[in-house]
Amino acid sequence: MSKYWKEIVKNIEPYIPGEQPGDKRYIKLNTNENPYPPSPGVIEAIRQGTNENLRLYPDPNCEELRETIAGYFGLSKEEVFVGNGSDEILAFSFLAFFNHGRPVLFPDITYSFYKVYAELFQVDYKLIPIDEEFIIPVEEFYAENNGIIIPNPNAPTGRFLPVDAFIEILKHNADSVVIIDEAYIDFGGESAAVIIKEYPNLLIIQTFSKSRSLAGLRVGFCVGHKDLIEGIRRVKNSFNSYTLDRLAVAGAIEAIRDENYFQETRSKIINTRERVSARLIEMGFNVIPSKANFIFISHPEVYAANLFHGLKNRGVLVRYFKKPRIDNFLRVTIGIDEEMDCFLDIIAESLF
Amino acid sequence: MSKYWKEIVKNIEPYIPGEQPGDKRYIKLNTNENPYPPSPGVIEAIRQGTNENLRLYPDPNCEELRETIAGYFGLSKEEVFVGNGSDEILAFSFLAFFNHGRPVLFPDITYSFYKVYAELFQVDYKLIPIDEEFIIPVEEFYAENNGIIIPNPNAPTGRFLPVDAFIEILKHNADSVVIIDEAYIDFGGESAAVIIKEYPNLLIIQTFSKSRSLAGLRVGFCVGHKDLIEGIRRVKNSFNSYTLDRLAVAGAIEAIRDENYFQETRSKIINTRERVSARLIEMGFNVIPSKANFIFISHPEVYAANLFHGLKNRGVLVRYFKKPRIDNFLRVTIGIDEEMDCFLDIIAESLF
Repeated sequence: MSKYWKEIVKNIEPYIPGEQPGDKRYIKLNTNENPYPPSPGVIEAIRQGTNENLRLYPDPNCEELRETIAGYFGLSKEEVFVGNGSDEILAFSFLAFFNHGRPVLFPDITYSFYKVYAELFQVDYKLIPIDEEFIIPVEEFYAENNGIIIPNPNAPTGRFLPVDAFIEILKHNADSVVIIDEAYIDFGGESAAVIIKEYPNLLIIQTFSKSRSLAGLRVGFCVGHKDLIEGIRRVKNSFNSYTLDRLAVAGAIEAIRDENYFQETRSKIINTRERVSARLIEMGFNVIPSKANFIFISHPEVYAANLFHGLKNRGVLVRYFKKPRIDNFLRVTIGIDEEMDCFLDIIAESLF
Repeated sequence: MSKYWKEIVKNIEPYIPGEQPGDKRYIKLNTNENPYPPSPGVIEAIRQGTNENLRLYPDPNCEELRETIAGYFGLSKEEVFVGNGSDEILAFSFLAFFNHGRPVLFPDITYSFYKVYAELFQVDYKLIPIDEEFIIPVEEFYAENNGIIIPNPNAPTGRFLPVDAFIEILKHNADSVVIIDEAYIDFGGESAAVIIKEYPNLLIIQTFSKSRSLAGLRVGFCVGHKDLIEGIRRVKNSFNSYTLDRLAVAGAIEAIRDENYFQETRSKIINTRERVSARLIEMGFNVIPSKANFIFISHPEVYAANLFHGLKNRGVLVRYFKKPRIDNFLRVTIGIDEEMDCFLDIIAESLF
């Protein structure tokens, strides 16, 4: 605490990311990283870009990367913005679209960073309670608001809402920006990017950190009506001219281009998730149906916090949130098959 | 313009960075990039870091980089923060320290991004007029304020203030955070980092973009009392957990370690600057004495805008600001000797 801090900085509770352990080698199933390395083409593109041109600023508008993403979605580059991870884009979106006054709506169990943004930028918010099965009640988002954010699939539950549900939300909220945070969409969900052209108030945020195996490179993007994109661009250009370095741009372009690798690795993760989920259900776990690269699980007889510590002691790191309603659940990232078999063995032993 | 934009986004004038031309090959003296490539060790470190670990998030606290910088300045890592370029650190500082109400003070001729931050974050500001010779009037910063930012050397003038001047400003402003933006300090100025331990309200921001030849990598840092650093860290952790990617961290660490290369390249730039300045004075130019990697020049007979266009047509890009008081000046980045000889030849011809 310091007398020099602004009041808001004294009071805010910053977001706490999952542990990045330095002490020993864990099976790391705690931060939803992709267990497969980036595509070999990505590695090659970055190595090639590692040259004397690093002395020069990057393209502040990331034209080539935006064109590449636009091509992938059948959009124009004016409908694409790229940022330093999807978190930066979320922060810029709060600055661009959400006023004081009426609240921004988001689910009560969700990515805990939304609340932090609202506090940092002094935007009112209202939590929409999701039900006992962690299903998001669509109608509750028809209430008066100043904006809406829903992750799809939701985090940390993994629950997915079909595009039709968002069409209803969009129709009831023509005066608000509706953000769908699709960080985990590539693991079995259907992206709402297909309806971008129909809803000028829809903004979809995605990331290279999960399905593209590039958490270490810090690239996210969003797609939406060109006026929304221009709004975010104005904020970014009032904040930091160059948010993506040359190497991040080079790697991200290649990650989009290598479609085969993307399809192959995401399929493997989906298959592993389904196999592990089935096995956990056999063990008596409640496994929330997931379309993400993680599962959210609870056991009727062994408390989640105990399982968390038991796993950690035996070298497996998962995520445990000591928060109301979810403090008897573990969020487990889907690793490669060998890691998950090890996880299954240890958790089976922990039940007895 | 869009009905979804916040009022502030409608009204703000974003910062416009120097041109990054794509049309043809220029001698590029317009964005204060370093003409020398990054150290070979930096290139090697990044290439080595380009591996499958890119699938993993970086260290959110950048401990190793902060320790390396701390060691360089004889500080502890709690006195160091790193960010995505010094611009991001400036933005975080506005969020961390500057309240509504009393104004933040900065020179009227200075880095034009400060005004943009003030508008984006709704902080009042007051411009302190600098004199006809672009000398900053230290006493004017003793006025009531909510914070102070002064670049040293100043941009785009290149004028340098000695540490003693900042000691006076700090003494008169014990209740405000005083930020010295030392983006260009390594080209002949003396850093105020030597007085960090004495003034808990002093924050010094530096960058890897200029003297470390890494504009393309996006790394900046600041040093100050640990409570100030903690304030910025709280803002960053409420904005984006991971602002530096793994490769930026790897490159930046090596850039600090390769002291010989740093000394060698910055000396070359200083020598070139002095030689070019002397030659321009011979040609009749008013050359503001510079301690930066650029010079700010004006000619009594030929209008700067004409020189700008003449140079551009002949393949030399410099920076021209169409703004009151400085619209008859050019800011010219110091390139390698061959580039500057070419610049001198063309500008000599343009005078006739």
